Amino acid sequence: MKKNVIVGQSGGPTAVINGSLYGTVCEALRKTDDFEHVYGMLNGIEGFLHDKMMDMSTLAETGELELLKTTPGSYLGSCRYKLPEDLSDPVFPHLFEKFKQYNIGYFFYIGGNDSMDTVSKLSRYASQTGSDIRILGLPKTIDNDLVETDHTPGFASAAKYVASTVREISIDASVYDNKKSVTIIEIMGRHAGWLAASSVLARKFEGDNPVLIYLPEVAFDPDEFIGKVKQALEDTPNLVVCISEGINDGNGTFICELASDVGVDNFGHKMLTGSGKYLENLVKEKLGVKVRSVELNVSQRCSSGLLSRTDLDEAIASGAFAVNNALAGETGYMIAFERISDEPYTLKCTLKDGNCSEPPWGTN
Amino acid sequence: MKKNVIVGQSGGPTAVINGSLYGTVCEALRKTDDFEHVYGMLNGIEGFLHDKMMDMSTLAETGELELLKTTPGSYLGSCRYKLPEDLSDPVFPHLFEKFKQYNIGYFFYIGGNDSMDTVSKLSRYASQTGSDIRILGLPKTIDNDLVETDHTPGFASAAKYVASTVREISIDASVYDNKKSVTIIEIMGRHAGWLAASSVLARKFEGDNPVLIYLPEVAFDPDEFIGKVKQALEDTPNLVVCISEGINDGNGTFICELASDVGVDNFGHKMLTGSGKYLENLVKEKLGVKVRSVELNVSQRCSSGLLSRTDLDEAIASGAFAVNNALAGETGYMIAFERISDEPYTLKCTLKDGNCSEPPWGTN
Repeated sequence: MKKNVIVGQSGGPTAVINGSLYGTVCEALRKTDDFEHVYGMLNGIEGFLHDKMMDMSTLAETGELELLKTTPGSYLGSCRYKLPEDLSDPVFPHLFEKFKQYNIGYFFYIGGNDSMDTVSKLSRYASQTGSDIRILGLPKTIDNDLVETDHTPGFASAAKYVASTVREISIDASVYDNKKSVTIIEIMGRHAGWLAASSVLARKFEGDNPVLIYLPEVAFDPDEFIGKVKQALEDTPNLVVCISEGINDGNGTFICELASDVGVDNFGHKMLTGSGKYLENLVKEKLGVKVRSVELNVSQRCSSGLLSRTDLDEAIASGAFAVNNALAGETGYMIAFERISDEPYTLKCTLKDGNCSEPPWGTN
Repeated sequence: MKKNVIVGQSGGPTAVINGSLYGTVCEALRKTDDFEHVYGMLNGIEGFLHDKMMDMSTLAETGELELLKTTPGSYLGSCRYKLPEDLSDPVFPHLFEKFKQYNIGYFFYIGGNDSMDTVSKLSRYASQTGSDIRILGLPKTIDNDLVETDHTPGFASAAKYVASTVREISIDASVYDNKKSVTIIEIMGRHAGWLAASSVLARKFEGDNPVLIYLPEVAFDPDEFIGKVKQALEDTPNLVVCISEGINDGNGTFICELASDVGVDNFGHKMLTGSGKYLENLVKEKLGVKVRSVELNVSQRCSSGLLSRTDLDEAIASGAFAVNNALAGETGYMIAFERISDEPYTLKCTLKDGNCSEPPWGTN
């Protein structure tokens, strides 16, 4: 008897997380000799525990499947559900009972670190209990902080959004030349600076904005920052500074926490303020120049208007690769990218073992 | 002797302010029988006072003129320079001396209310002194707050940005369904609600997000707001609320001023906080649900990625219309749009008198 496929999404959206879903579903629907039904789980593993599923073939019939590729957000909905560390927890037999009930032979999970943790636990449990269900993880993250892969689907689109938007904001900031001004742009990536670093792509020439870029990997010193800003304003009257939301003092204190220590609202609660807003006030106090801060916010993680074609192609490819490897008997792996060459840019999909005690994709 | 043309930009950028410039320059460069040189003033009238100009024909020769259409920001740079009310101020003869020096016969100024004020003053001064220089204004504003015109170039693109981005944020907010959440989106337009109202275009069905939209034209009552949010959360667990940055109590106090009365940073200064951030704290305090605020910020006024083709076409048309009317001897007018029909959507350019004591475009 042919088995069924189920695919889910988890964690925060990216511009191409639905590309990974599209790639998986398209390839699975093509293999009519191998699979009976292709199901999507709604709101990830958490929804599946409540039998929330849909049949993906209806999407193909209505033509909506093609639209998935450029749909923002997570089409199937998401969850933030961490399976217990203890594989003897009753949730595991409960889940596998459900797999049996729905005749699931293939399980694909698209997500970040926590989702790959789910893949690891489920496949280890399957191995322990002799289940032949094949379980594979498809990575997504705008932070690009998974190890043992060249990069992750979602990052390139987010980087394109950041580069384009920082360029537009820099142009906007430069229309008046008669007064010194500072624009501070706060970019996502609390622990990883890849996305903030991508703002360098907004520069058109040496010394162009953003002149200063701050990453969370380097300890941030407010006094040094003010000195650099003062100096940069000499050459660039309309200065743009990009910062990661996660800039910190190197000893575990985020700069935004300094801000939250300060402002108290009229209920006596701390005002939650970002690092950008904190530095805006610092620049105003120390240098007295016109200053504003801009938080790029959630658009950078799911804006479909600026998604990268290459990123989308790679996400789709990772889905197809997962399906074919599951068919070939592989289980317990995360799909990763290996760069073959830079020029021409060539990439191949590979499998990374997710069953070792220290998962290769990090533990954050 | 043929006279020269000069064109300038003023005020904040829009996605199509360079479209207006393109339309003006293209049409003027075509009329080689009528005009000698076509100049751009750098940083508006303020730059012109310091002889900052460029010859626009070089842009056409390099092919860069075509690129202007989709270039964000104000290509020529901008200024915020208000001419004195008193037409006997020495700046007026000084300016007209410069017009004479550069053999300027045609002056086009692209901008908002203040720029139209410049057009009005210059053309009244010209009339008083018998100067035959022809002076026309091309409107731009994302706020859409000029009167006697159906709408203004720049608004449609900003509205498209708002609608698209609010849709993306709403989708992003909806991926988790297991917990009530409120997302407050703050949109530009301090005194005019057109842009915040455009967020309604993000709705796909009745009751869809943004469920609540608040405009500056209606007095805002925080208690009533909390009641509405509480009620809306019953049907929409991931609620999106759009507010204009200018929501106020109806008696002249902006909601963001309530916030600024409160937070004080570690220098003892008021933390400048937007209305969205203030309401975020209010919802957290009163309802205890997950809440965040997003300020769309400057991208909504100049993002070229989401510019409206219709808006661009109309901006270009307004430039060509201005040039031809100046050639026909018209002066002291603002270019306005008159809607001929809704279906099919048909528009024509008209001239609005800018020399009356109360300019038709409002006085803000």
